[in-house]
Amino acid sequence: MKIAISGKGGVGKTLLAALLSKTFAESGYSVIAIDADPDSNLAATLGFPHSEKITPISEMSDLIEERTGVRPGQAGALYKLNPKVDDLPEKYSLEYNGIRLMVMGRIKKGGTGCYCPENALLQALITHLFLARDEVVILDMEAGIEHLGRGTAKVVDKLIVVVEPGRRSIETAYRIDKLARDIGLQNIAVVGNKFRSQSDREFLISSLPNFEFLGFIPYDQAIVDADHANLPIVDASQQVITQARNIYQTLLSAVQTPSPAN
Amino acid sequence: MKIAISGKGGVGKTLLAALLSKTFAESGYSVIAIDADPDSNLAATLGFPHSEKITPISEMSDLIEERTGVRPGQAGALYKLNPKVDDLPEKYSLEYNGIRLMVMGRIKKGGTGCYCPENALLQALITHLFLARDEVVILDMEAGIEHLGRGTAKVVDKLIVVVEPGRRSIETAYRIDKLARDIGLQNIAVVGNKFRSQSDREFLISSLPNFEFLGFIPYDQAIVDADHANLPIVDASQQVITQARNIYQTLLSAVQTPSPAN
Repeated sequence: MKIAISGKGGVGKTLLAALLSKTFAESGYSVIAIDADPDSNLAATLGFPHSEKITPISEMSDLIEERTGVRPGQAGALYKLNPKVDDLPEKYSLEYNGIRLMVMGRIKKGGTGCYCPENALLQALITHLFLARDEVVILDMEAGIEHLGRGTAKVVDKLIVVVEPGRRSIETAYRIDKLARDIGLQNIAVVGNKFRSQSDREFLISSLPNFEFLGFIPYDQAIVDADHANLPIVDASQQVITQARNIYQTLLSAVQTPSPAN
Repeated sequence: MKIAISGKGGVGKTLLAALLSKTFAESGYSVIAIDADPDSNLAATLGFPHSEKITPISEMSDLIEERTGVRPGQAGALYKLNPKVDDLPEKYSLEYNGIRLMVMGRIKKGGTGCYCPENALLQALITHLFLARDEVVILDMEAGIEHLGRGTAKVVDKLIVVVEPGRRSIETAYRIDKLARDIGLQNIAVVGNKFRSQSDREFLISSLPNFEFLGFIPYDQAIVDADHANLPIVDASQQVITQARNIYQTLLSAVQTPSPAN
């Protein structure tokens, strides 16, 4: 299963990506978590040590050509091979707590260009990656809508849009939904994050009447405190972990993939 | 004066852009507020009616060539003219409460590309725009760091990074600072937003010891409520407006531009 997590900046995309990675890993899945946001830090959120050792996907051009028969960016070519996950060289990922982490690209020097080439490579990788039944890819996308213009995540099985109780994140969810449909992505769902009250929850539900809700994550001061203390926020709150587990269950029944334990 | 507002997604860039636009306008400046984030809505934050009538900067290619003698994207050409603000055709902006609003580009169809061309045009416009002493341009930039790779805001007089009491927004501030210096932008300052306590404030100050703080904006439930009720959040909280006024004063003394009243 390939899952992408999108939404307005600051809504908690990276937290959800980390929570789902952890939950899938604990349930017996092989997880590839991909940090596709150059202004994010999925590694730190998951508590990875030495994530700077990972060679980013943006330096995988030769490998992708070798495995797929296609030079990234080249149009109309035939795809010869499906690269398998357990085939990906170790140097492009780092494993910790059963999660293999990959990163899209490094932060570049100011003024040296956009992230279009990195996005093209990431798209090539996730398009051609052949997953076994017990393997899952979780993509933490860049904030906002530009990646949908680029179509980076167009082959995922599920696009999760994270929203918080605020009108701007709702507006972004509608934009993402529209843009995702433009690129043929139909399987979209939302997760509500940082709700503080029943009325926050109702605000989200009434603002997004035609969306599938996978679940809700409460605001928890323990997450904020862990962040300030520079501890992995993914482990900070039991109630948040419990809600992530519920979201995982809903997600599995929604996409009807049998769990590897079955 | 040309000011760009940057920061992690969700920290309150658009709120600060709107507050400063309003404060400068009320102090007698001619304000051009530019919404440079396709996933933002500066118009709604400022309470603009009918913002959909604005022709975006991305459709100004011919005008920029005519006024500057340079086709946007063309390198090494000579700049013949400086376009003046009061010369810009009405159709590219909408005026409301003394603020002229421009937008970088419309939301495009999913899969049709990135925002590189729009950023190139915006950069051309703000580079060549000749401002009178009582004119100010306020740019609400896209979340994150990609616009610094593109160098969109490299000619501004001041880059303001908005931070909130959370480690991720601090990390983004450091990344922005580094990338901005790569493109020759030295005049960088921060504004702390959404602080709820003295310890939030101290967390921000101690996390960013070498940064110039222009001021702090408190968390205010009135802003959240106005957002939920779909009212212009720029008018929602008197204490926030007061702090914006302090930031405006600090900004003026920092860049030593005489106010138009002098």
